[in-house]
Amino acid sequence: MNTELSIAVNGQGLYEITSDVAAVVKSSGLNDGLATVYIRHTSASLVIQENADPAVQRDLEAFLARVVPEGDSADNPVPYTHVEEGADDMPAHIKSALTQTHLSIPVVDGRLALGTWQGVFLWEHRHRANQRRVIVNLLS
Amino acid sequence: MNTELSIAVNGQGLYEITSDVAAVVKSSGLNDGLATVYIRHTSASLVIQENADPAVQRDLEAFLARVVPEGDSADNPVPYTHVEEGADDMPAHIKSALTQTHLSIPVVDGRLALGTWQGVFLWEHRHRANQRRVIVNLLS
Amino acid sequence: MNTELSIAVNGQGLYEITSDVAAVVKSSGLNDGLATVYIRHTSASLVIQENADPAVQRDLEAFLARVVPEGDSADNPVPYTHVEEGADDMPAHIKSALTQTHLSIPVVDGRLALGTWQGVFLWEHRHRANQRRVIVNLLS
Repeated sequence: MNTELSIAVNGQGLYEITSDVAAVVKSSGLNDGLATVYIRHTSASLVIQENADPAVQRDLEAFLARVVPEGDSADNPVPYTHVEEGADDMPAHIKSALTQTHLSIPVVDGRLALGTWQGVFLWEHRHRANQRRVIVNLLS
Repeated sequence: MNTELSIAVNGQGLYEITSDVAAVVKSSGLNDGLATVYIRHTSASLVIQENADPAVQRDLEAFLARVVPEGDSADNPVPYTHVEEGADDMPAHIKSALTQTHLSIPVVDGRLALGTWQGVFLWEHRHRANQRRVIVNLLS
Repeated sequence: MNTELSIAVNGQGLYEITSDVAAVVKSSGLNDGLATVYIRHTSASLVIQENADPAVQRDLEAFLARVVPEGDSADNPVPYTHVEEGADDMPAHIKSALTQTHLSIPVVDGRLALGTWQGVFLWEHRHRANQRRVIVNLLS
């Protein structure tokens, strides 16, 4: 019912994990039910977005960077007090709060019922490379 | 377990679908469980909000329009690179990312356990009329 | 399957409810499944966030207050039309729309599968003290 995946990321950006999640659904044999994807972190998140044009992903990334600035110099301080873990850590928490820690997607006829243009993405908000742990829960 | 609804929309705004979702719950005979509403699009989203005063919905719409501007003239360009599908398309993707693609609501005694003032809304982020596909998944 | 909790809040801020949710899971005897937390309000919300450093919670609060201002004087009006229920009400609705009304968390080996730094928080967006109703739904 619960399968943990480890997703390698290499800095900020959207990483499509649709095929990873679909593989868990397929191997389970689940025909009709609900798949829930859960990320066990607070500086990376999940989102369902268009997976056709990579420019969409870049524009999403740029938007969040404007709304939740990191600050990059003494002339450009940021209004965060939680700074011990790096300039990208508190912005990463805020970006995670504004997006999703979990996603639930119906499973119909053995497949994720994603719309034509939908993909499941892990949204990494920190600069460093990392392994992110994601759980796929299946219910019927 | 999964029922697909087609919701007609006529441009940007919040469209209440509480009664559509409640009808699926009622016809299922489900007494205690979980209802999950899922939208199969990336330029429209879902949200639970106050359904008493229509001004709340207008203020929500106005807020998102300020935070995620569309740009409406050469003097007011917007910082998006994904522009091929119209000036309202990339903002619609961002607005969807900031709100919800799915909502799960407990079912208690045969009814959605919404709070007194809560309604389920489809939030359309594009200007044109459309039919939006929403799946209601029920689990017990 | 559905358990309602009443959470006391005393003004704006993040209130950790991880132990309340964990207690429901423990008393249920559920070993593997999915726990869904649902808040029956539109001016308070839910979020999973870092629970180690309280500064994270203060920074999250300060961020939302900047992005969704309440206005505090005639010199600082806010662009909302829904104002009858107080200057903090419409901002509370917007803050709720930008965060979560529900969270689903896998249950593995009888425990919430939270990451090391994750906690479940009720995010109160109004100034007054209140009792907030939260439902914990368990599925297996």
